[in-house]
Order: sequence, then C-alpha cells, then structure tokens
Amino acid sequence: MRFAKGHGTGNDFLILPDPDDALALPAELVARLCDRRFGLGADGVLRAVRTGQAGWFMDYRNADGSVAEMCGNGIRVFARYLLGLGLVAGPAFVVGTRAGPRPVWARPDGAITVDMGAPRVLGRGSATLGDRECRGLAVSLGNPHLACLVDEPVAEFDLSAPPVTDHALFPQSVNVEVVRACGARQLEMRVYERGSGATLSCGTGAVAAAVAAAAATAAGGQAGAVARYEEVAPAGTWTVDVPGGRLAVALEATTSLLTGPAVIVAEGELSSAWLADPAAAVVSASS
Amino acid sequence: MRFAKGHGTGNDFLILPDPDDALALPAELVARLCDRRFGLGADGVLRAVRTGQAGWFMDYRNADGSVAEMCGNGIRVFARYLLGLGLVAGPAFVVGTRAGPRPVWARPDGAITVDMGAPRVLGRGSATLGDRECRGLAVSLGNPHLACLVDEPVAEFDLSAPPVTDHALFPQSVNVEVVRACGARQLEMRVYERGSGATLSCGTGAVAAAVAAAAATAAGGQAGAVARYEEVAPAGTWTVDVPGGRLAVALEATTSLLTGPAVIVAEGELSSAWLADPAAAVVSASS
Repeated sequence: MRFAKGHGTGNDFLILPDPDDALALPAELVARLCDRRFGLGADGVLRAVRTGQAGWFMDYRNADGSVAEMCGNGIRVFARYLLGLGLVAGPAFVVGTRAGPRPVWARPDGAITVDMGAPRVLGRGSATLGDRECRGLAVSLGNPHLACLVDEPVAEFDLSAPPVTDHALFPQSVNVEVVRACGARQLEMRVYERGSGATLSCGTGAVAAAVAAAAATAAGGQAGAVARYEEVAPAGTWTVDVPGGRLAVALEATTSLLTGPAVIVAEGELSSAWLADPAAAVVSASS
Repeated sequence: MRFAKGHGTGNDFLILPDPDDALALPAELVARLCDRRFGLGADGVLRAVRTGQAGWFMDYRNADGSVAEMCGNGIRVFARYLLGLGLVAGPAFVVGTRAGPRPVWARPDGAITVDMGAPRVLGRGSATLGDRECRGLAVSLGNPHLACLVDEPVAEFDLSAPPVTDHALFPQSVNVEVVRACGARQLEMRVYERGSGATLSCGTGAVAAAVAAAAATAAGGQAGAVARYEEVAPAGTWTVDVPGGRLAVALEATTSLLTGPAVIVAEGELSSAWLADPAAAVVSASS
C-alpha cells in the first residue's frame, strides 16, 4: 500500500492513492495509520479515488476512522499531491467530496486555493473558555463554528479544555474560534475543534473567523447583528494567522475562497508485515 | 533521501540509511524530520552508517537534534531494519554506538534482544511526583535513572510535570520510573524521561526498574540497601509492562539483556522540495 504524507499550516494528512477504488479501509486501519507512535501519524486520511475520465474523489477520514464531509486544509494537500504526481492537468481542477464538487487551483506563488462555498450565518452565541465568557457569531461551513471576536491576544485564552457552549443552540457541539483583529482585514485566530481539541489550524474555522470579523465591521462592532452572509459579502480578502501558519480567506458575494500552503513531506510504501499483523506491536518476550 | 519509520513498544524512530557516511544531518533537519505535524514525526532519528566489512554504526539523535549515546528501544528497531533489508547476515550481529559496540540478536518469536551492558548502582534517592514522595534506587545505564518501587498501581501517579529530585544527587537531572511488582519477576512501570516527559516506553528505564526490584528482593524490601550490581545479579528475567507494550529484562552476572518487539511501519523517500525549502511550510497567500 503506497502513501504520501503532507500538511497544510500544520494540519497533517496521509494520502492513500486508490485509483480503482479497490482499497478496503476499515476504521480500525485508519486509526492505526494515524497513530503517531505505532503507525505513521496524521490528523486524517485522504483516500484518492479516480472518478470518470480525469476526476478524483477525496474520501476523507478523521484520525479515529470516522467519515467526514470536507476539510479545507486536507483538500489543499490532496490537490498538491495530485498536481505533484501529474495525476491532474492543473493548475485548476475540481475535487469530488462528500460535500459536493470543490474547485481548487494552484497559484503562481505555490499556495493552493479551494472554493469553500457560501458560509451560512446561524446567529449569535457565546462560549466560556476557562474563566472568560466570549460572545461570537455562529457560522456553518458544513460544520458548525462559533467565531468569537476578542480584544486580548488570542495566545492568552485557555483552550486546554472544551469550551462550554449553549447545548440548545449547538446540540452536536461546535468548533470554537477566538479571533482578534490586528490590522486592516488581518486576524489572528486559535481554535478548539470538537473531538480534537486545540489544533494548529482549521480551514473552515478561518473562513468562519473572517465572516465574523466582516460582520462586526459591517454592523459597527456587533457581529451578532448580522443574520445572513449576504449582508456582509463581498468583503474582500482577510489574512488569518493560525498557530501553524498563515491562511487567506476571500469573502465573495456567493462563495468563500480559502488559500494557503500545502506541502508533501514524503512518499513511500507501508510495510506488508505491519499491515498484516497488528499484534506485532506487542510481541511477548522471554529470555 | 530514503527513510524508514518503526517503533519498539511505542517509542518511534526514523531510520536514515547512509552507508557511505555522506549525509549532512544538522540538528535543524533532525528537528524538522521529527516534528509530528510539519515533518514525519518521531522520538528520534537513527542514521545507519556502514563500518568496515559488514558492520553498521547507529548515529542516534534525539528529536531536538541533539546527539545521544544509546537507546535500548531504538537499537532494536535499527536491528530490525538492517535484518529486514538483508544488510546484515543475522540473526546475531554487533551494532556500533557511541556507548560502544552492542550485540543484538533476533529471536525465533520475532522479538529482538540487545546486550545493554552492566547497570551501575549509584545509590538511594527520592522523587516527588505530584503530592507523593517516592524512594528509589539510582541506577545508571549510561544515562541516570531513579527507579522507585511503589505499592499503588502505576497509573495512579502524576507524571504530568517533571518530578522534583535532589539536585545535589542528580546535577544533570534524572529519568524517573515508578515500578510496581505485580507477580513473581513481573513489573509494571511508567517513566518520566528528562527532556521528554512521560513516554510510552524507555528501554534503559526498564532495565533500571528490574535492577531496583531485584535489589529490593535481595535486601528484604530495601532496594536502597544495595550498593553494587554484583550484589543482586544474576537475578533471572523480569517482565516489564510499559504503556506501549511489554519488555523483558534479563539480569545476568556481568551484563543485562533487553528483549522486546521492534516493528518497521513503512519505508519511503523524502520530498526533495520539502528538504530544499523549509519556508514552504509558511507560504504567504493573497487572493
């Protein structure tokens, strides 16, 4: 079984080429692959399946093996992989995902952009982080976010434990961002991802952060006063600094674009002995 | 640049084949390789350099790039790699290390044994873990350990912060083990490694744990009453369960043997673009 490993702003992925859709990929194997000590280690797995003449589908799995619809950093790494191997014509093409087809394109400076679709504004909300309560704008990019605009440096917030949020508003929990404006359309952001904790980056979270900041600008500081994406977009391009690097988010009239680096670190082949024998990890030993 | 990734009881390593000793391996590159998000990720790097007719030297580096003498789990993974590629005749051979030549051999059940040399008893000591003070036996395997025999399950001890130890006794800090006897010559152990924190396994720590337990048996429960390894060895084979699996330690008259699993997970090639351009990780992006 071949693999590649890559990352986008510190969100890292294993890519498994499977053009003929022949690979059995049970959740247990995904979890073993993503284990950072006993496997190769990653935040998720991107299985690459050929569709039709020249298209590719991204079968995205979380590190625990569960299926997910989309991943803004993952799809950029996926695009970099296909481009690097010449598996797509480039520089612009469409990647199939469970959230629908997503246009992607490589930029001359090496960054990769993905069309994330139109964000959906869900309303106001609040989150308690450590001993601080933060108010924010709830925004959906397929997955729910609560982007909280703050005045203090984002490094000061306690993301060591899950933020406490309103269960009635977010029955399936929510990803929480703390977002601080540090210049014209320049943001810094940290994120607590539901199910993962504080991470180095989150592509959908960066888009939600830009929407909340644009909404606050449009409504005189009150992000919560905005009820629909159409009230704030188009709103230009926002730079979003995350712990793992820098992303750019363009808020266009009917969609949003996420741009950032995508890097392939290595390619290789999994050991067939490792694949065949999970128990090999714990051989009993006697002298 | 080729690589392999493997682990021994959850201690994971990147092996870089460099038969002709031609590879420049600055600390900065080791740290990038071992970064679990921006690189491949590992606890350390094992550079494999050919010596003489058929021998190999293990150039061991910690994850931060610093040089270290030996690593009981690393050398077993190193041996597995050489055997798997047919780079040594096997099943028994000698690996050169900065701590001197170390005999290794593969067992019929797949485990690999390494001759760790004679442990050196340093004396009594104590460590404070959270709100508990533990007394132990200080043992050197090239690196210093304080192996503390405890009555409670080792899972109950707080290893989230560095143990407080006597600076006069351990001026360069010390690796601290909590060790509990759970059967005849059966131990469970957790370890706090200086500079790394709580880890899944530690080969030299497992040997120190067995020495402390054998000393307590020899001295009627008072491990600290033993001043020299010769007072307790030979003391048979001890099973040491660590969070990452199971190790066996044979305490022989003039040396000690460490046995356990060693697994190669994958092999591959590092991306030349990644190697050439560390800055590629943070491409600035604009729409």
